[in-house]
Amino acid sequence: MRTEYIEKLAGMMNDYQMDAVLICPSEELLFLTGFNPMMCERFQGLVICSDGRMFYICNLLYKDQVEAGLGKSVPVYTWFDGDDMVEIVSGILQENHLGEAVIGVNSSAPAYQILDIAGRIPVRFVDAKPLLEEIRIHKTPEEQECLRQAARIADEAFAAILPRVHAGMKEQDVMDLLAEEMTSRGGENPEGIVASGPNSSYPHYNAYGRTIQDHDLCVLDYGCTYKGLHSDMSRTIFIGEPTGEQKKVYDIVDRAQMAAQKAAVEGAFIPDIDYAARHIIDTEGYEGSLVNRVGHGIGYMIHEAPDIKKSDPRKLERGMAFSIEPGIYLAGNFGIRIENIVMINDRGETEVLNQASRKLIVL
Amino acid sequence: MRTEYIEKLAGMMNDYQMDAVLICPSEELLFLTGFNPMMCERFQGLVICSDGRMFYICNLLYKDQVEAGLGKSVPVYTWFDGDDMVEIVSGILQENHLGEAVIGVNSSAPAYQILDIAGRIPVRFVDAKPLLEEIRIHKTPEEQECLRQAARIADEAFAAILPRVHAGMKEQDVMDLLAEEMTSRGGENPEGIVASGPNSSYPHYNAYGRTIQDHDLCVLDYGCTYKGLHSDMSRTIFIGEPTGEQKKVYDIVDRAQMAAQKAAVEGAFIPDIDYAARHIIDTEGYEGSLVNRVGHGIGYMIHEAPDIKKSDPRKLERGMAFSIEPGIYLAGNFGIRIENIVMINDRGETEVLNQASRKLIVL
Repeated sequence: MRTEYIEKLAGMMNDYQMDAVLICPSEELLFLTGFNPMMCERFQGLVICSDGRMFYICNLLYKDQVEAGLGKSVPVYTWFDGDDMVEIVSGILQENHLGEAVIGVNSSAPAYQILDIAGRIPVRFVDAKPLLEEIRIHKTPEEQECLRQAARIADEAFAAILPRVHAGMKEQDVMDLLAEEMTSRGGENPEGIVASGPNSSYPHYNAYGRTIQDHDLCVLDYGCTYKGLHSDMSRTIFIGEPTGEQKKVYDIVDRAQMAAQKAAVEGAFIPDIDYAARHIIDTEGYEGSLVNRVGHGIGYMIHEAPDIKKSDPRKLERGMAFSIEPGIYLAGNFGIRIENIVMINDRGETEVLNQASRKLIVL
Repeated sequence: MRTEYIEKLAGMMNDYQMDAVLICPSEELLFLTGFNPMMCERFQGLVICSDGRMFYICNLLYKDQVEAGLGKSVPVYTWFDGDDMVEIVSGILQENHLGEAVIGVNSSAPAYQILDIAGRIPVRFVDAKPLLEEIRIHKTPEEQECLRQAARIADEAFAAILPRVHAGMKEQDVMDLLAEEMTSRGGENPEGIVASGPNSSYPHYNAYGRTIQDHDLCVLDYGCTYKGLHSDMSRTIFIGEPTGEQKKVYDIVDRAQMAAQKAAVEGAFIPDIDYAARHIIDTEGYEGSLVNRVGHGIGYMIHEAPDIKKSDPRKLERGMAFSIEPGIYLAGNFGIRIENIVMINDRGETEVLNQASRKLIVL
């Protein structure tokens, strides 16, 4: 249990006009409690009240596991598969004086269950994701060190697989190599995107079935966790000589990424960082082809606050860690992205966590 | 696009008092459209209206991928990372005359986003999971065949790994073997639980870190998909001679499983099937140790309708497929479970899809 964060969360609920927060299985629950059971369709979650009270609600099937995971200090209320879940859970909330409360929900709470419960009793559920991100937005020195290690593992995996990537491999094969190299270095939960040829034009391409061809380019966007903290990096590599346009786009993305990275200093206004990269892409003839934000915060979740985008009008502070990952995406043709994790460290320096080569690499 | 199911869904919305259904990325979306993009924290989903109209809402980042995946016949509305998502999505719903509508949500719709949207416009969101399950509860002959193949692959993987399991392996190693054997036989998305020693007493144990010891028992609960349809089976194996109590419990679970399997005939009242297994366990001295339902429906999702439990008071019909998986769970000590998938086939027969040995196996 991270008591200090639980107390911080409880203490901030008033400001967010919440009486309690419900945290279903997720990295948010793992972060607060060190425990994260399987999330099946049976409703469950930890309730933390603004007065510091806590209790857990789960199906009877999970009771022993939750008690073993959380320790006996957190009361566990259960419902049984043979019961009407909504009735039992409503009763538990009422018994805990939350039957008419405002309860914030975390990012994994399923709408259909929350709506079912809200349909039975006059509780009001609201979005607690911003609050849950706020309490962990400034990374501690220990967390910063884990982010460094996670980034180092991803960097090393990139260097390690390069000699082994060639035309004829499936995208999945490349992902498997990355996963293997990260795992062997102590990285956990390896995950990523390997998008070759036209698939690279979809920033979140999520199939892995294509066979890499000669003269493909290939976006590798991947990472792992180290003691729960994530890495996330992207490089675009070429299987055979790139075309003139690909070289030109690579150069623009490279400069856009560097410009945003340079703009990301302590005290910088976040929309300016987004603009620094976007402006270069827009004025170099690719207006509109950076279809997303320039970056996202990173920590116990791969995407968390602060986002690097026009609509996140805050200033960078020490302890914030985030990606800088502009790209140019030409639908159905190709896409190029370069991504590093950047952190404002405890000395107020802009620390670029990824050191893997960003040169145009032709295999 | 499975037009017949989309029409069925639209046609049933009136009975469920819904004007539209929102389907976020999930196996439910995959089932209806053959397409399933990555689900990140950016709100997206397919909206199907009761009059048959359809449109998709996503972040600009996904637009090209969605159009390539769904075809140009489904209009795609987008919002951009730099926008206020809730404002844009609210406007899209209003533009489509759904600003005050009742919209059902699927199982993957995140509560925090649904609550944010419902906080902005007078739309009313409700639970559409039961409706989405109802439209696919009767498996077609083709789907039945896929369920058979998925079960066969899981059965074969069990036989294949037995000679390779021994004390000193980690639970993860056993899971890897199962995944490898299922994948090599054409199974996709291998998944499962390997719970050794005391971990077996937690039905949904989800870590894999323990090293299997001499004289452990080990619950293997796993499956894969074949053309999108799931298998799911459990066997409990012994690494060295079981204790007297373990033998006794194995025998009770075996008889309970057989009794429920036998009770699962066309027209049977579902609570009676649950009772058939539970009664044996309760009267043989282990009352209360079957902490969950006796089974769950299976198909395009690993858990779907019908549940085999007291509170699902319907009768078995042709085309229904479900697990029968009673267990006895003795917290912190051990647990034993045997699970087969059973189907009421098109001839009205009770077809047991899993044929892997259910004898007490000592390695």
